Amino acid sequence: MKKSDNVAAPLRMIPLGGLEQIGMNITAFEYGDSIMVVDCGLGFPEDDMYGVDLVIPDVTYLEKNIDRVRGFVITHGHEDHIGALPYILKKVNVPVYATKLTTGIIEHKLEEHGMLETTVRKVVRFGSTITLGDFHVEFIRTNHSITDSAALAIYTPQGILVHTGDFKVDYTPIYGDAIDLQRLGELGKKGVLALMCDSTNAERPGFTPSESTVGKTFNNIFESNRNKRIIVATFASNVDRVQQIVNTAHEYGRKCVIEGRSMINIINTAIELEYLKVPADTLIELDELKNYPEEKTVIITTGSQGERLAALSRMAGGTHKKIAIGCKDVIIFSSHPIPGNEKAVTRIINELFHKGADVVFQDAHVSGHACQEEIKLIYALTHPKYSVPVHGEYKHLKAHARIAAQMGVEKENIFILQSGDVLEFRDGTAEKAGHEQSGQVFVDGLGVGDVGNVVLRDRQRLAEDGILLIALAMDGENRVVSGPEIVTRGFVYVKEADEIMEDIHILVGETLLDLLENERQPGRGRMRTAIKDAVGEYIWKKTERRPMVLPVILDIE
Amino acid sequence: MKKSDNVAAPLRMIPLGGLEQIGMNITAFEYGDSIMVVDCGLGFPEDDMYGVDLVIPDVTYLEKNIDRVRGFVITHGHEDHIGALPYILKKVNVPVYATKLTTGIIEHKLEEHGMLETTVRKVVRFGSTITLGDFHVEFIRTNHSITDSAALAIYTPQGILVHTGDFKVDYTPIYGDAIDLQRLGELGKKGVLALMCDSTNAERPGFTPSESTVGKTFNNIFESNRNKRIIVATFASNVDRVQQIVNTAHEYGRKCVIEGRSMINIINTAIELEYLKVPADTLIELDELKNYPEEKTVIITTGSQGERLAALSRMAGGTHKKIAIGCKDVIIFSSHPIPGNEKAVTRIINELFHKGADVVFQDAHVSGHACQEEIKLIYALTHPKYSVPVHGEYKHLKAHARIAAQMGVEKENIFILQSGDVLEFRDGTAEKAGHEQSGQVFVDGLGVGDVGNVVLRDRQRLAEDGILLIALAMDGENRVVSGPEIVTRGFVYVKEADEIMEDIHILVGETLLDLLENERQPGRGRMRTAIKDAVGEYIWKKTERRPMVLPVILDIE
Repeated sequence: MKKSDNVAAPLRMIPLGGLEQIGMNITAFEYGDSIMVVDCGLGFPEDDMYGVDLVIPDVTYLEKNIDRVRGFVITHGHEDHIGALPYILKKVNVPVYATKLTTGIIEHKLEEHGMLETTVRKVVRFGSTITLGDFHVEFIRTNHSITDSAALAIYTPQGILVHTGDFKVDYTPIYGDAIDLQRLGELGKKGVLALMCDSTNAERPGFTPSESTVGKTFNNIFESNRNKRIIVATFASNVDRVQQIVNTAHEYGRKCVIEGRSMINIINTAIELEYLKVPADTLIELDELKNYPEEKTVIITTGSQGERLAALSRMAGGTHKKIAIGCKDVIIFSSHPIPGNEKAVTRIINELFHKGADVVFQDAHVSGHACQEEIKLIYALTHPKYSVPVHGEYKHLKAHARIAAQMGVEKENIFILQSGDVLEFRDGTAEKAGHEQSGQVFVDGLGVGDVGNVVLRDRQRLAEDGILLIALAMDGENRVVSGPEIVTRGFVYVKEADEIMEDIHILVGETLLDLLENERQPGRGRMRTAIKDAVGEYIWKKTERRPMVLPVILDIE
Repeated sequence: MKKSDNVAAPLRMIPLGGLEQIGMNITAFEYGDSIMVVDCGLGFPEDDMYGVDLVIPDVTYLEKNIDRVRGFVITHGHEDHIGALPYILKKVNVPVYATKLTTGIIEHKLEEHGMLETTVRKVVRFGSTITLGDFHVEFIRTNHSITDSAALAIYTPQGILVHTGDFKVDYTPIYGDAIDLQRLGELGKKGVLALMCDSTNAERPGFTPSESTVGKTFNNIFESNRNKRIIVATFASNVDRVQQIVNTAHEYGRKCVIEGRSMINIINTAIELEYLKVPADTLIELDELKNYPEEKTVIITTGSQGERLAALSRMAGGTHKKIAIGCKDVIIFSSHPIPGNEKAVTRIINELFHKGADVVFQDAHVSGHACQEEIKLIYALTHPKYSVPVHGEYKHLKAHARIAAQMGVEKENIFILQSGDVLEFRDGTAEKAGHEQSGQVFVDGLGVGDVGNVVLRDRQRLAEDGILLIALAMDGENRVVSGPEIVTRGFVYVKEADEIMEDIHILVGETLLDLLENERQPGRGRMRTAIKDAVGEYIWKKTERRPMVLPVILDIE
């Protein structure tokens, strides 16, 4: 281990996730005997990751170096930045540093996992600096679709790094102040070694509009729907959005209900910590809804992405226990579908229309991420020597790299990294220096990491064509004493496939006979393979399907 | 059966598909002893229809009334209008009427299914009228993203119906003339009983731009990429798009290769029938590509929707046998992702960038469907008494209904139907009159209809948590003489689940013992259920997963 006062030690930046997808953000920084980690997010499973609930980062690198890890520094309270904490802290139990609201949200999560007692949390104010071994980290205010988001200035013996976290530039935010552009400019004056900046909207020209523009849209919609109940679906964590809905509701003399578990959790935390200011008597409980005329109420709910189990989906499908949708309802989607969710959202819209409700398509949403001109602004202020685009798929990182080049960063100083890549800074130069273990760990139910690629491939195969099981019992003389019994699931509607089942029955017998006649003492394994091959081939010829064929041979003494 | 000269007979309109989704368009019209069918399309499976290749309509109604069915009238050559023909014609073998290019595409399809000999095809010219029993059907020229698309005027003893097919209003189309608005106006003057009009873009204000606007975009892109190979991905059937790419390529002195099976098929048909005019020496074979400098070639390919097996996907993934992507390539997506395909398209874009290629995002696409102002134009011209919005999900039909009302159709004269609904016209009035069988039939491999909801539910369950199989052999005295043998697939990585497997082994034995002690002569079925329940519960507690548990008991004499 290097001595921490050795200024010649290199600074190593190791993203362990977040660069192949939007999600699972986590980056380690290593200097001498100090390691600090920025964010610890989860990823959502791809469509073909059947049965997987969550994806968390492989943190073998942190586990191996556990003695040096000083803490997690969290930029903001979104799942893709905090969601893996309960899983990772079990292996790497170090303090967690974050702003007040972010800490509140993390604490709720830790409580659910029964980990509040065992985890050290430290609330950090904007403008203040924490020390993690050789690192000093300053929290800088930014704007984003969740309040209390921070950029980080990471002071290291090799120079200053700036990590923007997820951000936008909002000169008129709903809560708190605009992003601290002055401080970013000051850092730029001091000299920024490297900038790690949000790439999510790097393909989009122009500026992202202010969150406050959405308020006007709500006003218009409330104005033209005075005689209807209003239901607004949005992201559970967008406290500022909820603030604006509550404000508009109050203005129009309506009561508000918050519905959906994750939204209730975050909103309660936000109210408690005074990030959300609710006018007296505006918020009511779901059970009180029936005491008010429909046109005097607003329901603020989760499910804007079409999530099947969320409150809005249950309302649309008619399975919500307390809210029935009808022709007196107007539903506002205060969100855009995240890529991949379009069809799920459309399904819900169709269901809502079917129930007689109206659905408003007016644009009641703005993004929380910086567009091209905002990204340029950050480069203009910080003027970094090196650029490491973060938070995006390859195409976003690539678009970001083009912007960095336009803003004067030398092309060879722009590093598009992959998870696990090590970028080493030494005496003002940077180069890729090897690779640390990284990857995805699947969470399925209570299991963490016990579903891997083999299990997933089996699930994909089972999903495609089902399974055909052949069970038989054999005695020591290789005589079939029972079976073959054939059972299928997900392959074919069996009542219409009598012929196929009979053929397979005969084929199994013939295959075994053949084998016993032509090979000397074939083992059970050989028999299973022969049955599998013969039956698989027959089925393909007959149906052009490839169900999993699973022969089981029981030995009878 | 009603007599066909009985003018008092009602006219029945029966959509058998196309009203719950975009796809699977097919509508029957019945008058006395005459039935005619407009279109016969397929649908694409939803995400949770695991293993299903295609969806075709349930045509039990046509089969039951086969003696009266006079023919299929096809509006244009897209899969969602012709794709089910090879399957349905096997059951309902009647003549198929369509324009020249549409017939050419259908014939290619029939040939692949070996049905060319047994199917009667009749080519119809625009402006001419065919007779199908009591129906007379006039083909009217429209514009769409495939050439030779037709609207239909259906003359019936109860009045004139107008069916637009899929259309847009293109005053400057690439091939042929603009939509025959005059004829639609003339029909309106005569009096149109009911209009069935395309709803796809009914949510979009304004007009869809002309196909010819795309040509200018191609010019710009070719101009600024003079030193690169150009690859354009678009829909296989968009002959006019291919024409424009070929024209631009010719202008810039480049040779064109057509790649992707479905595109090669349609383009060959289009060239043969003279719908596509290729300048001499412009089209070359894939194998000739190597004889030309890269910057003098264009590859026109399928796969613009991210389809995994299409040519572009193979190029991006590095598995295409003849085309390797590199930094001298620029790829143009001349298409928009169809809802649901966004992630697949993004995956390919990321892969292309990874290979060093450039991807152009300039808008090199226009829709083939009418926006709101074009739909209004059709209403202004035809001025129908009744409106039956077609071709869309519920939200599209609903948006269309609003337009119809704006255009003066009485609200009670606008019918949003569901597949199978019967709309009956009699003496100038219309009402819903019952329901005919309709639905989706799944095609999986060679099987048509042998995968139903039970099989699909099993596949969904298998996909989610896999399967756990328990095989054992028992003698007549209910003694376990072999097993239990436990095999899992897609449940858990077995090497790490030794404890679970051991527990299950013990649990099966205990469950059987319990049962035999506490119940009098439990049957094998009872034993299987008891094992299934006990093991299922144990696994849920241990893992929060619900694999399918499949006990098999073999009887030994």
